[in-house]
Amino acid sequence: MSTQTDRTTTAPAPADAPAPADAPAPAATPDALGVGMRLSLHPHTDDFVGVILGALADVEAAGLTAGLVTETDEVSTYVGARTAPAEQRLAAYLTALVAAASRRSGGGHVVAHVLLSRGCPGEVSCDLAVTGLPDAEPVEVEPTGIRAAAQWSLYPLLDGGSDGGDHMAHIEGAIAAAQRRGVAASPAHYATRLTGDVADVVATAVDAWAQVGTEVPHVVTHLTISVGSPSPAQA
Amino acid sequence: MSTQTDRTTTAPAPADAPAPADAPAPAATPDALGVGMRLSLHPHTDDFVGVILGALADVEAAGLTAGLVTETDEVSTYVGARTAPAEQRLAAYLTALVAAASRRSGGGHVVAHVLLSRGCPGEVSCDLAVTGLPDAEPVEVEPTGIRAAAQWSLYPLLDGGSDGGDHMAHIEGAIAAAQRRGVAASPAHYATRLTGDVADVVATAVDAWAQVGTEVPHVVTHLTISVGSPSPAQA
Repeated sequence: MSTQTDRTTTAPAPADAPAPADAPAPAATPDALGVGMRLSLHPHTDDFVGVILGALADVEAAGLTAGLVTETDEVSTYVGARTAPAEQRLAAYLTALVAAASRRSGGGHVVAHVLLSRGCPGEVSCDLAVTGLPDAEPVEVEPTGIRAAAQWSLYPLLDGGSDGGDHMAHIEGAIAAAQRRGVAASPAHYATRLTGDVADVVATAVDAWAQVGTEVPHVVTHLTISVGSPSPAQA
Repeated sequence: MSTQTDRTTTAPAPADAPAPADAPAPAATPDALGVGMRLSLHPHTDDFVGVILGALADVEAAGLTAGLVTETDEVSTYVGARTAPAEQRLAAYLTALVAAASRRSGGGHVVAHVLLSRGCPGEVSCDLAVTGLPDAEPVEVEPTGIRAAAQWSLYPLLDGGSDGGDHMAHIEGAIAAAQRRGVAASPAHYATRLTGDVADVVATAVDAWAQVGTEVPHVVTHLTISVGSPSPAQA
């Protein structure tokens, strides 16, 4: 991807609390922040194994696994971003995987479910060793030509008495940004509907998650992306 | 279900802040709390429409839609619990739906993804009018005889400076409870693996979500339930 450069995102030094010279603040690299996702791909066809394996091969052949580590288990696949630009790598991988599965299934009904997480690098505990949080760079993903309908939820995981603020204010700000960028966003119970090109839907969720991550350390977002559904499209 | 009774869950009066006589605290009914779920069902077969519609008909014929309202859109189905016992109704409905889809697909690969939410009854904002939170009664769901592998995430949505506490402490407590009840629980990145009968997997997630809901108003949990997967089972 032309938007993937070699720039490295590091933690900005907090203006009001400079680290002492003998204990520099560790850089908030994607690895240190635990930036990554879990995803599952559901082609609604008898040939679901062939579609999934074919789509994974397509994404690897396109060079989109660079800078990512993947681990597949019985339920889903973990994709971790070890180096910057982490969000760009994840968004490009996810978009290409959904598009490839759609093509491999002949435009049939495919659903992807993805959980994007940052700020909790451990498997059980969330001992975050970094100080400062990285800036968010908007991702740029090439359009796929495939329309998606999606449902999206965003969870800023504040701690009472610590990082301050109102979790719903972050969510409302993210929804407003999604509406401004032209991806139709309408509310539903517990989620926000997004419709548009797969690339725009993915970029909307990834950008919102990264933006909240500039203020809240631990942020998770869930996105269900549906393409080729036989259900009638909604406004 | 024999475990569904007519008891009504109401908000206990806070011991240290009795409501004034002219403004009684509204009861924290399931409807006022916005207790419900969004779910999507993914049969990995050419006949996915037949399997989904058949499973929905089976669950309705079994009387499991009593006390629930449902709304289906292009991506998922909203199931709201308006009356107690809300968690019991949701757990029974979800378990029966997954089991019916498994049977209807001849034991084929079916995945359900569910988002359970409480404490945010609106579609955009979370104006919770109740004071006090209801007790949690463990759900009881009849075993299905069908093994599931699942991934589960729990999000206590605290506000900084208000309801106090540490969001990870709630999550760690819920994982410990899942391990104690015999549903094998092992950590994965961003999620906890659960394996066991579909009924036990669902009950574990629902009980944890309701339990945290006795202390934190807004709690969401996501559960991905996989049955009949051709992938090798894990310990």
